[in-house]
Amino acid sequence: MKPTRLFVLVVLLISLQTHSQRKRARDYGIEIGVLKTGKNNAITDVLGVSVGHTTLILGDNVRTGVTAILPHSGNIFQDKVPAAIYIGNGFGKLAGYSQVKELGNIETPIILTNTLSVPIASDALITYTLDRNENVHSVNSIVGETNDSRLNDIRGRHIKLEHVLSAIENAKAGEVMEGNVGAGTGTVCFQFKGGIGTSSRVIPPSQGGYTVGVLVQSNFGGVLEINGVPIAKELNSIPKQYNYDTDGSCMIVVFTDAPLDSRNLERLAKRAMLGLGKTGGIASNGSGDYIIAVSTAKDNLIPYSSESLINEAKLLRNEAMTPLFLATIEATEEAIINSLFAAETMIGRNGNTVASLPIDRVMKIMTDYGKISKQ
Amino acid sequence: MKPTRLFVLVVLLISLQTHSQRKRARDYGIEIGVLKTGKNNAITDVLGVSVGHTTLILGDNVRTGVTAILPHSGNIFQDKVPAAIYIGNGFGKLAGYSQVKELGNIETPIILTNTLSVPIASDALITYTLDRNENVHSVNSIVGETNDSRLNDIRGRHIKLEHVLSAIENAKAGEVMEGNVGAGTGTVCFQFKGGIGTSSRVIPPSQGGYTVGVLVQSNFGGVLEINGVPIAKELNSIPKQYNYDTDGSCMIVVFTDAPLDSRNLERLAKRAMLGLGKTGGIASNGSGDYIIAVSTAKDNLIPYSSESLINEAKLLRNEAMTPLFLATIEATEEAIINSLFAAETMIGRNGNTVASLPIDRVMKIMTDYGKISKQ
Amino acid sequence: MKPTRLFVLVVLLISLQTHSQRKRARDYGIEIGVLKTGKNNAITDVLGVSVGHTTLILGDNVRTGVTAILPHSGNIFQDKVPAAIYIGNGFGKLAGYSQVKELGNIETPIILTNTLSVPIASDALITYTLDRNENVHSVNSIVGETNDSRLNDIRGRHIKLEHVLSAIENAKAGEVMEGNVGAGTGTVCFQFKGGIGTSSRVIPPSQGGYTVGVLVQSNFGGVLEINGVPIAKELNSIPKQYNYDTDGSCMIVVFTDAPLDSRNLERLAKRAMLGLGKTGGIASNGSGDYIIAVSTAKDNLIPYSSESLINEAKLLRNEAMTPLFLATIEATEEAIINSLFAAETMIGRNGNTVASLPIDRVMKIMTDYGKISKQ
Amino acid sequence: MKPTRLFVLVVLLISLQTHSQRKRARDYGIEIGVLKTGKNNAITDVLGVSVGHTTLILGDNVRTGVTAILPHSGNIFQDKVPAAIYIGNGFGKLAGYSQVKELGNIETPIILTNTLSVPIASDALITYTLDRNENVHSVNSIVGETNDSRLNDIRGRHIKLEHVLSAIENAKAGEVMEGNVGAGTGTVCFQFKGGIGTSSRVIPPSQGGYTVGVLVQSNFGGVLEINGVPIAKELNSIPKQYNYDTDGSCMIVVFTDAPLDSRNLERLAKRAMLGLGKTGGIASNGSGDYIIAVSTAKDNLIPYSSESLINEAKLLRNEAMTPLFLATIEATEEAIINSLFAAETMIGRNGNTVASLPIDRVMKIMTDYGKISKQ
Repeated sequence: MKPTRLFVLVVLLISLQTHSQRKRARDYGIEIGVLKTGKNNAITDVLGVSVGHTTLILGDNVRTGVTAILPHSGNIFQDKVPAAIYIGNGFGKLAGYSQVKELGNIETPIILTNTLSVPIASDALITYTLDRNENVHSVNSIVGETNDSRLNDIRGRHIKLEHVLSAIENAKAGEVMEGNVGAGTGTVCFQFKGGIGTSSRVIPPSQGGYTVGVLVQSNFGGVLEINGVPIAKELNSIPKQYNYDTDGSCMIVVFTDAPLDSRNLERLAKRAMLGLGKTGGIASNGSGDYIIAVSTAKDNLIPYSSESLINEAKLLRNEAMTPLFLATIEATEEAIINSLFAAETMIGRNGNTVASLPIDRVMKIMTDYGKISKQ
Repeated sequence: MKPTRLFVLVVLLISLQTHSQRKRARDYGIEIGVLKTGKNNAITDVLGVSVGHTTLILGDNVRTGVTAILPHSGNIFQDKVPAAIYIGNGFGKLAGYSQVKELGNIETPIILTNTLSVPIASDALITYTLDRNENVHSVNSIVGETNDSRLNDIRGRHIKLEHVLSAIENAKAGEVMEGNVGAGTGTVCFQFKGGIGTSSRVIPPSQGGYTVGVLVQSNFGGVLEINGVPIAKELNSIPKQYNYDTDGSCMIVVFTDAPLDSRNLERLAKRAMLGLGKTGGIASNGSGDYIIAVSTAKDNLIPYSSESLINEAKLLRNEAMTPLFLATIEATEEAIINSLFAAETMIGRNGNTVASLPIDRVMKIMTDYGKISKQ
Repeated sequence: MKPTRLFVLVVLLISLQTHSQRKRARDYGIEIGVLKTGKNNAITDVLGVSVGHTTLILGDNVRTGVTAILPHSGNIFQDKVPAAIYIGNGFGKLAGYSQVKELGNIETPIILTNTLSVPIASDALITYTLDRNENVHSVNSIVGETNDSRLNDIRGRHIKLEHVLSAIENAKAGEVMEGNVGAGTGTVCFQFKGGIGTSSRVIPPSQGGYTVGVLVQSNFGGVLEINGVPIAKELNSIPKQYNYDTDGSCMIVVFTDAPLDSRNLERLAKRAMLGLGKTGGIASNGSGDYIIAVSTAKDNLIPYSSESLINEAKLLRNEAMTPLFLATIEATEEAIINSLFAAETMIGRNGNTVASLPIDRVMKIMTDYGKISKQ
Repeated sequence: MKPTRLFVLVVLLISLQTHSQRKRARDYGIEIGVLKTGKNNAITDVLGVSVGHTTLILGDNVRTGVTAILPHSGNIFQDKVPAAIYIGNGFGKLAGYSQVKELGNIETPIILTNTLSVPIASDALITYTLDRNENVHSVNSIVGETNDSRLNDIRGRHIKLEHVLSAIENAKAGEVMEGNVGAGTGTVCFQFKGGIGTSSRVIPPSQGGYTVGVLVQSNFGGVLEINGVPIAKELNSIPKQYNYDTDGSCMIVVFTDAPLDSRNLERLAKRAMLGLGKTGGIASNGSGDYIIAVSTAKDNLIPYSSESLINEAKLLRNEAMTPLFLATIEATEEAIINSLFAAETMIGRNGNTVASLPIDRVMKIMTDYGKISKQ
């Protein structure tokens, strides 16, 4: 076994251990929104979608990682997916925006990582794609990021090619690890430990029965509310300054099996910001808030090459979009809250410590505000 | 006295009468957000800003009107104001977008009215501007709208030139009438009677001490929450269908005395959608959600003509934007809630009735959820 | 016969007379580009498209009009067409932008007129649509404009409802009148008399065989070139000042039968600006340069209401777009040149005179530069 | 001397040799446009701007490189420059777009390279910036690219950190090498050898006297025209297919000392596409055409940190933009033509050969068309 493999194995074991301990918001009786969740209440409830993490916790100062989200198990470059990216606030380094805007599709896995590792992750997606596609000379890597420099030696750029490839290779359907994993390893949200979170919604059969799944990398600030309860006020954690404490970013990935083209996917993506707003996020000046929206509908995959000049498509009518908008808002809000519930206290760079959300106190407050459903 | 004048007088008297009866959300102990309000908790807390309404309630079927917002008392065409318009969802007919985007300023009062009266209001702004400016051959009218057709005979296009001019002429500083007035006369919000609402915030002196004022014309749907309390759930008014009940629009006007250029005003405008989201709005497919943001900072007025090629400007630094973002979110949320508290039950077109928010029941729920501060 | 009808008749007779006298650029041996034209070298070469003009030449000071372009002969509101609008330079008052951007379609005829008559034309399109569609309460009028105030008493706003309706009603397929007709009656282009111009291109059958048709309302400035020949230099008409002489706008309407969605239509629309650039246009600060692009492909009409949640569509693949881009550039360039060749010297407001392009001198120059093909 | 240093030295020597042999378009009497050029007819005519190249010609298959453009000689991260990026056609991988759009400035040198080397160049800019700025954890690298895979083994990703740093370190004012240098080493334009080209214009003192400088990396197709003369027709090089021959991209960098904010810089950037159009470019589907526009005006540098909440700025009025638009169009057209005149025939990957523009034949044609001024 090569050292790299061993290393990745260790990393994954850490991740698994980290993950297994905590309940999700809904397990505590916090019911956000009015729509039903999918089976796993995760982005992977959208059929075919898989998620993989590489978590990098090394020594005292390295707390970072990679999260990969794949729309289907085939060759994504050969079977592109309709997509759009909406920029909530553009203080960020996301790679791949303009080609998605122009052509309306995505041709690589989506990678999330830290701010200064976007180039290496981008390069890794090129490697990944060239390895699987001969005679291809152009690859539009999709890489999002948030800045984990409070806990992570971000200037060290510790993410390497193998970490990115490992996240892709280990991507799987089903339950998704949340909290201090992958790209969420070192993130901070509302001054508590943030991380990866996910959630999903299914709209009624009469309105199409589609699923919307959301995954977030939460690393932003504001005035925390959980399902409408003023947690920041009650915990006395309202920011005194609107800079360091409130800056940071949120990457939001929205997948759906609804047959949407890039125009309606961009509309869907915009709604995710309303879900972020409901948690108390304010999209501060320093925030890089990007929403990547993808439709996995089989009918609308876009072949890289074709003998025909025409693609046939089945497209959801504009007026059928509204329940999907609601689904996106709800799933985004819950994914962010899930990231906070899953993340655990972490000590990192220069001994900086970021405490997890104090769940006992939070649940006491939630109960006082009448927001916990009977179980 | 000409018939028109008399008619306008009657209309205004009705408005005044309509207005005087109801308390605002904050009077009931509902405290949204963490920042302080301005003196009147209104868009007019931004120095120099004035608001005027023309309310048109005629016979059984006419329930509409005009609201005018002016950035200063001078000649707006000669002293233009930096401005931006952000499109939350573009199913609407707002006039004036592209020139504001291109040139970064506004040169007329802002008019709000109903969907099918945008042209006449636009024409009225041309009349208004030509009358005050010789040799001018180009006017970029700014007119927003929502669709009041449930209560109003919108196809009749009852708004006329004089209604628009009257709203402008009667604009004044100080308290702003809310609810069933002006452009909010016939609107519907969360299936209750909507209308005009306003609110403001002042940021701390150490961060600039600026004021942000918001005025909304609320006419949209979703799953109503008031300051985080699930009112729609409790009142059993969650939409069953996501079309008629959830469609409709929200016009949002944001003014500030902070010295912002059009780029930062567009960023400010985007945050208003987060405030809308916090009320349970979902920006449905059929919604025309536009935010018009204006800076009234004296230093940055843009003279129509100048002997110099250069305008000098004082511009707030990007990193000082964050508290203004928070202010915009809070003021938008409260302005929408104020519109609901102020609006009264109305019977209109074809006998359609839209009930006001049942304030007693709402306050009971708010109290049960621990959301009413001691008074 | 009512006076209005009589008046419109007279206007149309004037138009017909005005039109019949002049050859088009290609008739003189000026061959722009490398692709073939359609049968009439006009926007109406796109099957189903019709164009109508109302020309308003009254007394000494009124020189204006209306041009209507219709995508098909059915009810446009009931069978909407995929569309996009690209803003080359936004110093203009075009109505309808944001809804087209959001929903990707157009639901009314396209009207071109003068700057200050956009509201009345917008209102006329509402009237037109309400008259043909019961129970409709929302109409997104599409109205473009340029500023004809050098020759026209624009402040008088002489365009009325009937002029707009007449242009629509008289729209027909086949040859299109050019020059001083319709919305081009009073326009000025490169300091010569501008007006309406049109042209078309057909791409090779192996690449789809689609037609692109362009119609322009030319009213802008710059440094005129005709098919690459420096006419402005040779005629000594290079602007001395870059303001009055170079300002003005160009409305460009691009229709195609290629099956494009709004994303690819926006891309198509962007290319029209390259065609404008090739005539020496510079999209000056004061220019309102808008391109409205529409696909008339039968398969992709969007029904206003449907029992299905899904529209089926046949969409041209991205990589098949390039020949359509070239077609748009060529047809735009030629449409502008055609507008100059067709327009005749006009005396208008305050005795202002704008001379037509001196065709004899131009042809002498074109010949000297070796740009005239043998006939 | 370390091998890397030696290697870079060799590369630079090759570049110098490559460069010295050819005259520029204007030296042949080709006078594009009506405005005067700056002293060197180069982007470096904008005071303070410097350009550096690394040219990588190795063995049979490596034909690529890096070009760096710096706005001033100070610390760019500490003194950011107002900037905008306009996307002509977004089939490209440019890094840094969204933060420039959001914040309106650039904080690194601008790097141009090949498509698959954007990540490594992006990473190099991070290294460059971290090395010069302690405690910085966020860097928005600006990297543009075109695809040189016809001549270059692009899949090999031969560009390394040191090539990027070398280009920056060797940047200098004064004359700029053109043709097969830096990022233009392996590019193809109108089926001839493309490369780096540059040009500048100075507007009249009465209109501000500002300079606009343009640098292009030309790698695109279409139907070549030189100063309006139909070279492609005469050389029988009109593309038969609109795909491989017409695809490719153009990176355009526009610098000016005019005091423009990001809004007016974006407007300036848009005009560069008109210049590209005048060369016969069509912005084909596969093209990544990006224009990066920067103002170097000393008064408007944006300090990274400041004790004040306010930046004072002197901003050119909108109506003074027009001559700068014309300057941008002319300089872009000439920069592209210069790239063709400077580039020499190259043999590269798999023995693929791309011939240089046949200057003798071209000049014969130009003379026949009466387009050569007396010298």
